[in-house]
Amino acid sequence: MKVLIVGANGQIGKHLVSFIQDHNDLEAKVMIRKEEQAASFKELGAETAVVDLEEDVQAIAKAAEGVDAIVFTAGSGPNTGADKTILVDLDGAVKTMKAAEEAGVKRFVMISSFDTTREAIQSAPSSFAPYVAAKHYADEWLKSTDLDYTIIHPGALSNDDGIGKVNAASRVERNEIPREDVASVIVATLENDATIGKEFQVVTGTNSIKDEIDSL
Amino acid sequence: MKVLIVGANGQIGKHLVSFIQDHNDLEAKVMIRKEEQAASFKELGAETAVVDLEEDVQAIAKAAEGVDAIVFTAGSGPNTGADKTILVDLDGAVKTMKAAEEAGVKRFVMISSFDTTREAIQSAPSSFAPYVAAKHYADEWLKSTDLDYTIIHPGALSNDDGIGKVNAASRVERNEIPREDVASVIVATLENDATIGKEFQVVTGTNSIKDEIDSL
Repeated sequence: MKVLIVGANGQIGKHLVSFIQDHNDLEAKVMIRKEEQAASFKELGAETAVVDLEEDVQAIAKAAEGVDAIVFTAGSGPNTGADKTILVDLDGAVKTMKAAEEAGVKRFVMISSFDTTREAIQSAPSSFAPYVAAKHYADEWLKSTDLDYTIIHPGALSNDDGIGKVNAASRVERNEIPREDVASVIVATLENDATIGKEFQVVTGTNSIKDEIDSL
Repeated sequence: MKVLIVGANGQIGKHLVSFIQDHNDLEAKVMIRKEEQAASFKELGAETAVVDLEEDVQAIAKAAEGVDAIVFTAGSGPNTGADKTILVDLDGAVKTMKAAEEAGVKRFVMISSFDTTREAIQSAPSSFAPYVAAKHYADEWLKSTDLDYTIIHPGALSNDDGIGKVNAASRVERNEIPREDVASVIVATLENDATIGKEFQVVTGTNSIKDEIDSL
């Protein structure tokens, strides 16, 4: 299975590309914003496509040609304004879904935020609410498509080493999760078609990642 | 027909309330953000409800109780950041649609921007693109509901006196239109159920507003 990773240069993305390239049945193609980000991915043997999420659907669809799945783990990040939140986290995500449809890629794994419900928008601190709203509308759009989607809602991301143990369910108690473990959760999700049409929260917990994803 | 005007204190809203109150078959209820905005509307005999669009769906639904139609003409305005663009122009609009559903109000007239297509997001100057995206997603959401919607896409808004002559069609050549004429277009839309399920661009032109709306 060839997987296009949108946002490969992010911290989850880098772990994910590495895991995929170590995996016998998976192969990574990375979508990155700048040519100078390509070297480390090429070293891992990953194919690269230089496309900015602010480009149009056709540019993203070209990157998606010939892949079997797309993982969206891009984000505008904490150092940009709400203008990029709407153009990247919402519109960039929806353009990637349209690109998937255009390129005939059915499988789509979205890395969302821990809680993107309407209630979460309403109760978020005002500085965070635009981000929650953007992720909410991206998730809602994805659920309205015919794509074979899974929406992953990780807890508070840490840079700790992965421990390979998680709790995953439609609602779990808020907790941290290492970005490295989120990458492992994505791999387990790609390997299990029973996750299609589902969304789940995932945090550090007590069960092995494979068991926990397989039990969803 | 009792009409809730969301964004009544805006420039289009003020003209609209005045026209509705002058109209035999229509009656205005205004949704405003602050109690101190109420006096001028009460003088016109309009009922008032003080609700901020950043409040929850239930608060907006309470304002919508007992009305027959909702006109959404609110906007975060040019003096706020993209955070308010997503929370008001997109999320505030969608919450108003949900409030309409909750309050059993079927008729919903959205005042959109001239061009909210995907192509318009892509070609907009970067300072304007977040606004176009917010209006795009609000319009798309509305079209996915079961509400009796009409989406009005006015040209560049001016504060000139209305002249009562417009061109309206799914696509028209870009031009200005006085806010006062947009208010008249909204009244003509509310009076013509043949506009349900339609969206149209409207600019200053050559035909009377009623004839032009009736010809859609």
